[in-house]
Amino acid sequence: MHNTFSIPAGFQFAGLHCGLKQNATRQDLALILSERAAVAVGAYTQNRVFAAPVALDRARTPTEGARVVVINSGNANACTGKRGMRDAEQMARLAAEAVGVAEDAALVLSTGIIGEFLPMEKIAQGIPRVAAVLDSDEASVTSAARGMMTTDTVEKIASRKFQASGHEACVLGLAKGAAMIGPNMATMLALVTTDAAVETEFAQEALREAVQETFNCISVDGHMSTNDTVLLLANGASGVELTTEELRSQFRRALREVCADLARAIVEDAEGASHLITLDITGCASRDEAHRVARAIAESPLVKTAVCGADPNWGRIVSAAGYAGVPFDPNEVVLTLNGETLYEHGTPTDFDAAAVSQSIRDRRETHIELRLSRGNVSLRFWTADLTAEYVRLNADYHT
Amino acid sequence: MHNTFSIPAGFQFAGLHCGLKQNATRQDLALILSERAAVAVGAYTQNRVFAAPVALDRARTPTEGARVVVINSGNANACTGKRGMRDAEQMARLAAEAVGVAEDAALVLSTGIIGEFLPMEKIAQGIPRVAAVLDSDEASVTSAARGMMTTDTVEKIASRKFQASGHEACVLGLAKGAAMIGPNMATMLALVTTDAAVETEFAQEALREAVQETFNCISVDGHMSTNDTVLLLANGASGVELTTEELRSQFRRALREVCADLARAIVEDAEGASHLITLDITGCASRDEAHRVARAIAESPLVKTAVCGADPNWGRIVSAAGYAGVPFDPNEVVLTLNGETLYEHGTPTDFDAAAVSQSIRDRRETHIELRLSRGNVSLRFWTADLTAEYVRLNADYHT
Repeated sequence: MHNTFSIPAGFQFAGLHCGLKQNATRQDLALILSERAAVAVGAYTQNRVFAAPVALDRARTPTEGARVVVINSGNANACTGKRGMRDAEQMARLAAEAVGVAEDAALVLSTGIIGEFLPMEKIAQGIPRVAAVLDSDEASVTSAARGMMTTDTVEKIASRKFQASGHEACVLGLAKGAAMIGPNMATMLALVTTDAAVETEFAQEALREAVQETFNCISVDGHMSTNDTVLLLANGASGVELTTEELRSQFRRALREVCADLARAIVEDAEGASHLITLDITGCASRDEAHRVARAIAESPLVKTAVCGADPNWGRIVSAAGYAGVPFDPNEVVLTLNGETLYEHGTPTDFDAAAVSQSIRDRRETHIELRLSRGNVSLRFWTADLTAEYVRLNADYHT
Repeated sequence: MHNTFSIPAGFQFAGLHCGLKQNATRQDLALILSERAAVAVGAYTQNRVFAAPVALDRARTPTEGARVVVINSGNANACTGKRGMRDAEQMARLAAEAVGVAEDAALVLSTGIIGEFLPMEKIAQGIPRVAAVLDSDEASVTSAARGMMTTDTVEKIASRKFQASGHEACVLGLAKGAAMIGPNMATMLALVTTDAAVETEFAQEALREAVQETFNCISVDGHMSTNDTVLLLANGASGVELTTEELRSQFRRALREVCADLARAIVEDAEGASHLITLDITGCASRDEAHRVARAIAESPLVKTAVCGADPNWGRIVSAAGYAGVPFDPNEVVLTLNGETLYEHGTPTDFDAAAVSQSIRDRRETHIELRLSRGNVSLRFWTADLTAEYVRLNADYHT
């Protein structure tokens, strides 16, 4: 994502290679510092099997005293038992020492191979070095974003700003993820920083909502990981306090839009994908049923291979919706793909298959809308097509 | 499946090509006749979007007067509206007339492309022809089984016999399915015939149980179809009546074993598969939680591509189990693959990865056992690996 972005006041960023990845040109260690105490809240994987850093962050959030987040890629520090827990704590301690803050003011994110212990000597050597290059320019933010990446092909960065009484607040998010993506939470990491002053409870609520509408609405392969985490740090350095309903609303929107950009970017970078698939499920009685229908469609290998093959296969889409456990009437749903209505009144329409197929081939994004007649709740969900390349990437194993 | 099988008394079978498939050497129409009135019970797809023949069979079962089942492949008669319903009824009527029975004594099964009307003129010409070649030898049974096939590469036939007071009863099943397979009911068709005398209520119960343990425990791609149906016809022609608990038990077992053979055969023939994956989930508190864990593992593209690549990836398997919604303790599960323990006490063991990988490569079947410590309920589930060939077969589209 080679877009420009804004950087919230009072944060510094850094990223470098410390030896966790084989390729020395790849960053694998990152640091994000808040110059003042920040409110920190998190949203975490619901997998029963969760990594040591997830346990640590869960125990330390919510908090009003967060100062630093240390991130490594190349190793998820998951399924590493008691030693893994000690290593996560040590990593946090090293980061806190390097920037001169209290130990419990540090949070940890890890991603990568699971079941192997962290190479702590490399991390111990790398942390002082990365702390020495902390800065608040675009290059530093980009390096930090790269330090989180595993199979991602591009760094994922998004920001929004909003105004209040002559001051400006900024929300900046960094994320990673390209496979093993499935709600809840979609296997990925995201770190969102803001210079708005946000109270802890409101921050937790706003994050929960934003996550529900964005990171919980993406799937690459429906596989929730051991490490999923979204952290939000708010340090108030902009002077903008969310004292009115209008300001709280603006913050919510900025946060949601940043998360939506990042969530979409994760799916666009899905392993082996040739199409982003945007699903709009509308006319539902509740968000829960819209989500079920979306997931059923998004997780069907038959739907995903159809898009890969530019096949306007309405049958696979409608029958996938049909097993979502939502009691809709097949005669009452309307299916539209890339603007063309393919199915309604219980049967396919007389659509031009060659033209619709061409429209799938011509565009990087395939847009599918399924309209039920059970209410007025809508939901947007993203997934990617299933290609031979995905199989190749994930069946690629050598001892 | 080039095995031998037994044929129950009082049934006749036939299959031929009537023009629904392009290739004239492929049967696409089959007939199964019971020479006397038979008890017929069914289990059907739970998809909200279900085909006309499913609606017809649901309405006509359970019954004690079934005489004939007419089957076509090449067209599922699904999403065909009112005309599809009339065509299904007409197809049943033609079959009944051809064998000289009452109209409502006929049941219908269809499989194949959805959203297109049945070519009724071909069916009308074919039914008398197939009725004329009804017989009770192996060749006729095989032709009927082939008449059900779509993307199957082999016909699926299984039988069991049991004794009672000098008489012998036989259970013979035919099935089809190779993709779009996902519980409940796993997109497939199965027709089970028996010459035992079975009361309607007991037949329904026995079928329900057998389906729950077999066809509901397979997945190729997790996609439940519009046409899934299992029919059981029992005509009593053997003289064996299920008058004792022992006999009822023998029948249940025979039925379950026939269904298990067919279910396994379906997965073994999965599109593009290079491995059958047998999952044994043990030590569970309930069947429901064992089934959830099995499905999560079986439906993960990451687990399936790992097997394809002969990768002993315990992390993907354990993390898939972790999002099944079953609150197990990761420190209390043991994962074994092809007899080797890969994970226990919350961390991987020191296993020989090269040797385990070789064992996957050397065998057509990969056996995975996940032992929880929450009770003593076990469940066996089958799936297949995910290969580039699956993608190729299902992304293959031309206008």
